[in-house]
Parts: sequence; structure tokens; C-alpha cells
Amino acid sequence: MKPIGERVELADLPLREDLRGRTPYGAPQLDVPVRLNTNENPYPPTPELVADVTRAVAEVAGGLHRYPDRDAVALREDLAAYLSTSTGVPLTGRNLWAANGSNEIIQQVLQAFGGPGRTALGFEPSYSMHPIIAAGTRTEWAPTPRRADFSLDTEKAAETVDARQPDVVFVTSPNNPTGQSIPTRDLRGLIEAAPGMVVVDEAYAEFSSRQSAVSLLADYPGKLIVSRTMSKAFAFAGGRLGYLAAAPAVVDALLLVRLPYHLSALTQAAARASLRHAAETLGSVAKLAAERDRVAEALAGLGFDVVPSDANFVLFGWFEDARATWRSYLERGVLIRDVGIAGHLRVTVGTPEENDVFLAASKEVDR
Amino acid sequence: MKPIGERVELADLPLREDLRGRTPYGAPQLDVPVRLNTNENPYPPTPELVADVTRAVAEVAGGLHRYPDRDAVALREDLAAYLSTSTGVPLTGRNLWAANGSNEIIQQVLQAFGGPGRTALGFEPSYSMHPIIAAGTRTEWAPTPRRADFSLDTEKAAETVDARQPDVVFVTSPNNPTGQSIPTRDLRGLIEAAPGMVVVDEAYAEFSSRQSAVSLLADYPGKLIVSRTMSKAFAFAGGRLGYLAAAPAVVDALLLVRLPYHLSALTQAAARASLRHAAETLGSVAKLAAERDRVAEALAGLGFDVVPSDANFVLFGWFEDARATWRSYLERGVLIRDVGIAGHLRVTVGTPEENDVFLAASKEVDR
Repeated sequence: MKPIGERVELADLPLREDLRGRTPYGAPQLDVPVRLNTNENPYPPTPELVADVTRAVAEVAGGLHRYPDRDAVALREDLAAYLSTSTGVPLTGRNLWAANGSNEIIQQVLQAFGGPGRTALGFEPSYSMHPIIAAGTRTEWAPTPRRADFSLDTEKAAETVDARQPDVVFVTSPNNPTGQSIPTRDLRGLIEAAPGMVVVDEAYAEFSSRQSAVSLLADYPGKLIVSRTMSKAFAFAGGRLGYLAAAPAVVDALLLVRLPYHLSALTQAAARASLRHAAETLGSVAKLAAERDRVAEALAGLGFDVVPSDANFVLFGWFEDARATWRSYLERGVLIRDVGIAGHLRVTVGTPEENDVFLAASKEVDR
Repeated sequence: MKPIGERVELADLPLREDLRGRTPYGAPQLDVPVRLNTNENPYPPTPELVADVTRAVAEVAGGLHRYPDRDAVALREDLAAYLSTSTGVPLTGRNLWAANGSNEIIQQVLQAFGGPGRTALGFEPSYSMHPIIAAGTRTEWAPTPRRADFSLDTEKAAETVDARQPDVVFVTSPNNPTGQSIPTRDLRGLIEAAPGMVVVDEAYAEFSSRQSAVSLLADYPGKLIVSRTMSKAFAFAGGRLGYLAAAPAVVDALLLVRLPYHLSALTQAAARASLRHAAETLGSVAKLAAERDRVAEALAGLGFDVVPSDANFVLFGWFEDARATWRSYLERGVLIRDVGIAGHLRVTVGTPEENDVFLAASKEVDR
């Protein structure tokens, strides 16, 4: 059956001019044996966690005819407890905010503190959604390059921030897709130079042994936002739960732009169940960090350039034609990521078996 | 324990100027015996539906470490099947799009077709989130009054649209919070006058016996968007699932602005389970429509002015001080809604028992 209105094309619609010619964001969702392209935790939820999520959903399912708690108070308390324990910084639910993935967190931050006539600055290459969400909220994007080795010169970064005076600064630590993280002491100068809000995107923090920027919140409550996600270390990518830690006033600001009832009763219940199993889920983190180091060493042994990583992925090269090498991996049943950095590809750290398949393919691919 | 950064106040933050002084949207979430304030279906999911939702979640919970289907293909097919059956218009999954509540649908529509420098027009009083989401996407809002009796003069509306040339027009049918719906033949003139997109918000369509605007899609594929929700008749407010029907190119446009992986695997699975039980859930619709008519008649019998309703709520008055009357209901354990229309309050149709409590309170409240 043909869809109604099929003859209308995108170009026929009164789309915003700045969206014309764009293509949707997204890594290919391909069904291949070894998927190492979106930095997921390769270990599925334990049977205990599956049972607890199911039980939690069964408990709320009888009340699905009612709207959920609009402010997700219980979930925010649980997130505060988790983050307090893991960072050593005493937080309350009023310091936390949650949304459908950290993308929605970032969108709300830019709706409140960015938008038309305002500028957000990021250090590239970094998380590709930052500029996309800036565009979606009509915030001017000011890309600022990292060093050639992808590390961040924080002194120079602070100077750039001082010169550009952006309303919002994004710092990703560990940085996706390159892997390095930034010591909190080096973040201070950057935060002090910023005239507006500084978002430290810590999506991969659990994989790093560095202190979290959450430890700086007490010193910079009027400027600092630390964003996090349950999609990576927490193995909850399918559940869509991003969150942030900040001063309560920052949360009050986001209440002005968040869509009411944005977090479903199912999401709130399932995320709380997942948090109850944090210890067992995060047990995989050490294993993945060890595998990351093994993969990085093996790639170096094969003559690749490997960017040092503090996360659950490794950026490596050099390839004359990264797209061709990406396809060469795919032909061997291994899906990795072409993140658009010349000469490089990114591989997510999988299970030891998946990593072995990837490394075997690495000996064979076209370079 | 006090939250970190408590001393910082909202006024200290570099919030966007247009957000200063605003208060967050939201009906009070109060724990009272009779809650008739947010137009939910008062009948909880059946035990069979609860079991099916639980089973569906259990099936996907083992894969929560992976991102969900970014384009929600299976859910969109199911929504197409439901909407085709209920409207008699043959739709495919490519005609459907889904998001976390119809609020997110509206936000995506305004991100694609509205935004800075563009205008959205609505006929007020209507759904209060339309102007709020317009503000959130920096779309200029052009409020246009309905008749004094809250009905819509579609001829005059078409003239206004022709004169104002808005980029997006919202028409809510049945209209919330007033209750009247618009015959599809009267929508034609309005759509023809519109230079841009027309969103017919049919959140309450299942309660109305009128033909859906979906039947106009074949005639206006480059202009018409029909938005729907599972929050009302479907008794799925806690699950957060809004959707729309439109030409495939409109869906392509929304793919450019939607946050990737916006719909969790849990939401997709639970919504599909809920759709499998559409027949039993929607069995409550006739019952609620009959109760609506009973409540409306009883209110008229008590000397209230009652606005004719085609939905699951009734707007009524006249009150010298609507806020005082609202409180007077609340003191009697009945939570209804002050929607900000002078002299009026809105009551959601509940179970017969809840409606009896409401009607008994109506005899006693301060007017």
C-alpha cells in the first residue's frame, strides 16, 4: 500500500530555510554480528535487573491512565543518591534533573540559556549532537578546534572563551569521539573565564578514573552544569535517561522550558529499578576499561595510530579513506563508526569475544 | 540536607530575557479523592492490558543496553493500523510519527516549520501548551479570539489566516478547554486559506462522533498535520505517547529536528501493547460520552452555564470568582481545573461515582 500524500516532497514543504538540504542525524542501525558503533555497554542487563525492571513496570502499569509525576521527584532523589556515592559530593534531589536522554537535557539547557541571539561554544571534534541541538534551538554555534592530537589546551580554551563570550560552553570529558578527559583543576580556569553557563558533558564519566566535575559545583553553582547519561556505563540506552547535576536554581530554569510530563511513568520506574542495580551493572566498567586498554595496545601493535582513551571507545587511524576502511570492517561483520574525522574511525569496546573479532578484522581491512 | 548551590537564585542566572518572571506550566498535582482536572480516562487499564504491557516490557528489558529503534517503525505501523480502522482512511507507517506526548510532536512541528521569524496562529481559548511551545521554539504567537460562546467562526478564521499569513495554524477539535469540535467541511476553507502548515489537534477525537480531519489528508498532503495522543481516550497518559498523521514528507521534515532515540524501547513496547487492547480500552469512550451528557445536563439543571462538549470534559460557569469556586470544590475533595477563562472552570468526566461526588459538590460550592 502506498502512503497517502506520497507525491509531496520535502522540498515542497514550507520547511525552515536553515533545515533545507540537511539529512537526519544517526548512525546506521544495521543488523550485523558485531555492533561496536554507538558506545553501548555490551553486557545485557542481568536476569535480576530484568526481573526488577519488569516488576517495577508491572507496579505502575495499573496507573498508566494517569499522568506521571511531572517533576520526577523520586527518580531525582535516587539519581542524587547514586551520584553522591559515586562522586563523594553530597547532592539532593533538588540538584538533579532528568529527561529522555542527555540530548533532551542539552536541548532544555539551550532553550533556557541559549537560543536566538545567543552563542554556544564547543571544542571540536566532540559530541556531534551539541551543534545539532544548538541549531535545533537556533543557538549560534561557535566551534573551536582542539589540538591536533585531539587533547584540549585548557589555557587557550579559557582565552578563547574570554574573547568570544559565549552564553553556553560545552566541555565533554571524557571527550567523545576522541576519549581524553580533563582534570577538574584544568576546568576551573575555563569556568572562571566563561560569562555564562558551562556544561561539562560527562556521558562517559564512569569509565574514567578522574574526579567528576560535580566536585566543582559548590564553587561554581551559578555557572556549572554537569550532564550525565544512563545510556553508556549503566547499560540503559534503550531506557533513555539523561540527567544533570546543578544548583537548584538551574533546575528551576529548566522547569520553564521542559515539556510537562516529559518523563513517562514507565521511564521513571524502570530507571529507578536500574539504579537499584548500579553496583552489579557498573561491575562491567572495570572489565571494559581493561578491554579498552587491550584493544588500544593491540591496535598500536598492528601499526595504527591510537588516541589515548579514558572512555569505552577508541579513536584510531590513519586511513587514506576512512569510509572505505569502515566498509571493509562492515564486510567482515563488524560495525564501527565513521565519526567524520579525517583518517580516523571509532570503535566501541565490546565483550572480549567481540573485541577479538574486531582485532582479527583489523589485520585484514583495507588501510 | 541542604542542596549544593542553594544560595544561587533564578534571577542570578543568565536566563533568556523572555523567560524571566515566568512560572512553570502545570496543573497542581494534588492528592485528593476525586481528580477531575487533567482530562484523563478515569478507568484504569484492565488486568489483561497490565499483563500485556508487563510482558512486552519484560521482552525488551533484556536488550535495554542497546539503543531503541530510532524511527520506531513497528510502533508507527501499529498506530497506522489503529488510525486507519478508526477513521476509515488507509494510512501506512510512513504517514505516522510518534513522540513522548503530543507536546513533543507539537514542539517538533514548530522546530521544523516555525521558529524565529515565523508565526503560529491559534484560536483562543484553546490548548494552553500551543503558545507555550511556540515561545519555547521562539515562534511568534498570534492569538485569535473565538466567538463569545467559544465556538469557531471558520469563515472569519479563514479570513484572519489569509490576512495574517501565519506559518503554522493550530485548530483544536474538539477544542480544549471548551469542548466543541469542527466539521471537516468547515476546516477546508481554513486549510485553503493557510499559506503554511495546519495542525489539527485531535487529542480528544475519540470522544467525538465527527469525522476526523485525517479524511482530509489526501486533499491537502502538503499542508495538513493531524496530531493525536494516547493520553486521553487510550488511558495511557502515564506512558506518554503522542503521534501525528501526515504526508511522508512531513515525517521526513520532523526527522531533521527530532532528538535521535527520543522514544525509549519501553515506550515503544508498552504503547504497542496498549494498541493491541484498543477495543477494550475504547469501550469506555461511549460510557464517558454518556456521563458527559449526564453531567452537562445536571449542571444546567443546577443553573450553571454549560458549554456544549464533544470531549471528555465540560466547561461551565458563570462564577464571580472562578478561583474561589475552584478552591471551594477542592475543600470538598474534588480537584477540577481553573483554565484561566474568566468566570469558568473545567471538569473532566470521571466515573459515575466521581461525577456524583462532583455534582453533589456543585450544589454546595460558593458561586
